[in-house]
Amino acid sequence: MIYLTRRERFSAAHRMFNPDLGDDENLELYGQCSNPGWHGHNYILYVTVKGDIDPELGYLINLKRLKDIIIEYVITPLDHRNINTQVPFTSGLLASTENIAVAIWNQLYEPVKKEGAELHSVKIAETENNFVEYLGD
Amino acid sequence: MIYLTRRERFSAAHRMFNPDLGDDENLELYGQCSNPGWHGHNYILYVTVKGDIDPELGYLINLKRLKDIIIEYVITPLDHRNINTQVPFTSGLLASTENIAVAIWNQLYEPVKKEGAELHSVKIAETENNFVEYLGD
Amino acid sequence: MIYLTRRERFSAAHRMFNPDLGDDENLELYGQCSNPGWHGHNYILYVTVKGDIDPELGYLINLKRLKDIIIEYVITPLDHRNINTQVPFTSGLLASTENIAVAIWNQLYEPVKKEGAELHSVKIAETENNFVEYLGD
Amino acid sequence: MIYLTRRERFSAAHRMFNPDLGDDENLELYGQCSNPGWHGHNYILYVTVKGDIDPELGYLINLKRLKDIIIEYVITPLDHRNINTQVPFTSGLLASTENIAVAIWNQLYEPVKKEGAELHSVKIAETENNFVEYLGD
Amino acid sequence: MIYLTRRERFSAAHRMFNPDLGDDENLELYGQCSNPGWHGHNYILYVTVKGDIDPELGYLINLKRLKDIIIEYVITPLDHRNINTQVPFTSGLLASTENIAVAIWNQLYEPVKKEGAELHSVKIAETENNFVEYLGD
Amino acid sequence: MIYLTRRERFSAAHRMFNPDLGDDENLELYGQCSNPGWHGHNYILYVTVKGDIDPELGYLINLKRLKDIIIEYVITPLDHRNINTQVPFTSGLLASTENIAVAIWNQLYEPVKKEGAELHSVKIAETENNFVEYLGD
Repeated sequence: MIYLTRRERFSAAHRMFNPDLGDDENLELYGQCSNPGWHGHNYILYVTVKGDIDPELGYLINLKRLKDIIIEYVITPLDHRNINTQVPFTSGLLASTENIAVAIWNQLYEPVKKEGAELHSVKIAETENNFVEYLGD
Repeated sequence: MIYLTRRERFSAAHRMFNPDLGDDENLELYGQCSNPGWHGHNYILYVTVKGDIDPELGYLINLKRLKDIIIEYVITPLDHRNINTQVPFTSGLLASTENIAVAIWNQLYEPVKKEGAELHSVKIAETENNFVEYLGD
Repeated sequence: MIYLTRRERFSAAHRMFNPDLGDDENLELYGQCSNPGWHGHNYILYVTVKGDIDPELGYLINLKRLKDIIIEYVITPLDHRNINTQVPFTSGLLASTENIAVAIWNQLYEPVKKEGAELHSVKIAETENNFVEYLGD
Repeated sequence: MIYLTRRERFSAAHRMFNPDLGDDENLELYGQCSNPGWHGHNYILYVTVKGDIDPELGYLINLKRLKDIIIEYVITPLDHRNINTQVPFTSGLLASTENIAVAIWNQLYEPVKKEGAELHSVKIAETENNFVEYLGD
Repeated sequence: MIYLTRRERFSAAHRMFNPDLGDDENLELYGQCSNPGWHGHNYILYVTVKGDIDPELGYLINLKRLKDIIIEYVITPLDHRNINTQVPFTSGLLASTENIAVAIWNQLYEPVKKEGAELHSVKIAETENNFVEYLGD
Repeated sequence: MIYLTRRERFSAAHRMFNPDLGDDENLELYGQCSNPGWHGHNYILYVTVKGDIDPELGYLINLKRLKDIIIEYVITPLDHRNINTQVPFTSGLLASTENIAVAIWNQLYEPVKKEGAELHSVKIAETENNFVEYLGD
């Protein structure tokens, strides 16, 4: 069993906003993180997959293929977008890093499986001080 | 002559947008950087001041005071805000990193001078790959 | 189950020193790490907590609250102090990074629990090359 | 149980090359990673060992001794060498990061054990975006 | 006057080798850096250009265009190549970081000028501890 | 003219302390930075030298020699020491980063000159947020 991690990045706008509540209540709950004018981050994404080394190819999974999957299913839809309103798999979600991590896991699980590997972890750094990791249920 | 640099960070939303042009023309000029739904970054700011070492105090300028000036004049107005619409000293500007750097220079020049030092450089990292530095005219 | 990590930093003095032995024996055991004049580090602390995402709030634990707990119970007592002699929860300990990590775990376990999360890991980087992690017994 | 990680670095040349195939087939499989003129990397190695804290010494294992073991068994043979042709424990291997990680694990397992600790993980960063970790079978 | 820096990376093989001398003399001069089996690095390149901010566009130079120039004239020829033997603008050079920096400067000076900016600096990190910067004659 | 930078690190104890004043006055001036029990840092040092590339050797100065000079004149005396009391070239100084930078400049100027290069800059990072640079008078 070997673990392979690919790092990718995306820059996006978001706000903490519970659609069941109004702007005032959201601001009370989340403070400036719920600023109605939005704010944004350079999110750093670490995707870890696991499996056996293919003895003939020497690797677990073609790294270029893994990169392409992450770009297609995650980075292209998210980069330079609004996470709350413009991304098919996060629009309407309460756009916390926790929920973004789970949504990215769901985007990647099947495509990684089709390549013969297993998704192990989705880790996101929202800032240099805050990280969220999801390993599945 | 000694140079002292303080690093601070802010996370904000912006888009490349020339208010003299429409959304379509802006998108053509700037691509996804002009996404009307905004995007954002973790901007890293490096402020460098210069001057002589105070022989009795051992430093050029009280670092805590320099930090407070940067927080008051730059970070508090910018952090978790929309650079294009919510920040007094950048609202209405074409919100490029170049223009943000000049605007931050203008915010800091006088307050740093009052502390007996001289502003030398304002440097901003927009992403880990893009940096802008302004040294005054 | 989701994992949330908060990074904080403290700068402190310490020396490797077994109080049952004299200076000479300590220097023989630990070399310059036991220098009686002290030395110090910029310690980087990673605190990871785990639990379920609150479906209404979108997060595992309020990040601002987690930060406040780490500041109150760990950073304020340790920062700009002498780990061997001035910190209630490490004074008298053999001030290795291993023992500091366990002592920080003990400081944080209950306060994190009261917030409805569970402490998962305390990781410390003493330098850019040396790291210690403690996951509890 | 405590985990101690030591970071070391080596710069080496390699190419992806399956010796059962010719240059053309290798180039087709691996692209420019199989360039016959070689390329190279600054590999970053993280070695994690685990065990109990020695109550008298305050540490899991003497960090200087751990560093010496990694230097002797891994860094000296690999640094400024050709991984495919000049390193006893990797020559002839398909020089993927996956296989290098396993080979380094095999180099370190016994020497770490003799020091009273247990090897937990060998992690290699090939670039700032690609990482491989091996935890044993 | 504003300064804009773009960071790019390339991984390549090289050795310190003066073609006027034999392998033995080169090894004596440069030690293991002249290993005939090659070694390699993840080189990090910082290209800084300078000029005035275009008042209508808000930037000094289109960052995407600057990136494309660096990729075309520097990264594509160097990445996953042998600096001593496979790169048109460095082959036959004594492949020190100093000479590589000057060669990259010569590659970029005119293409940057055609975009209306002026090349200010080429900086290369060979490892995390060694950097070379060239500002022109 | 080419610029070569070497990064080295040292971990040391210090306090801000003006020996003409008592502990109380120093604490009032410098706050916890003057803690009588000391604190410490992982200082990161960047030494930049400049000169012409030797056309036969391909470099400005032998990097191994530059490293040895920095280790001998700066790192060995400072690492794991008390900057205020145990280092010949800083003892008795008001141990600010500014004064440490000037003291290191004075240590290195002549030895670098003897190697045929010229000292250009001494830069120190005290923490990841604070930097001091000295370029000579």
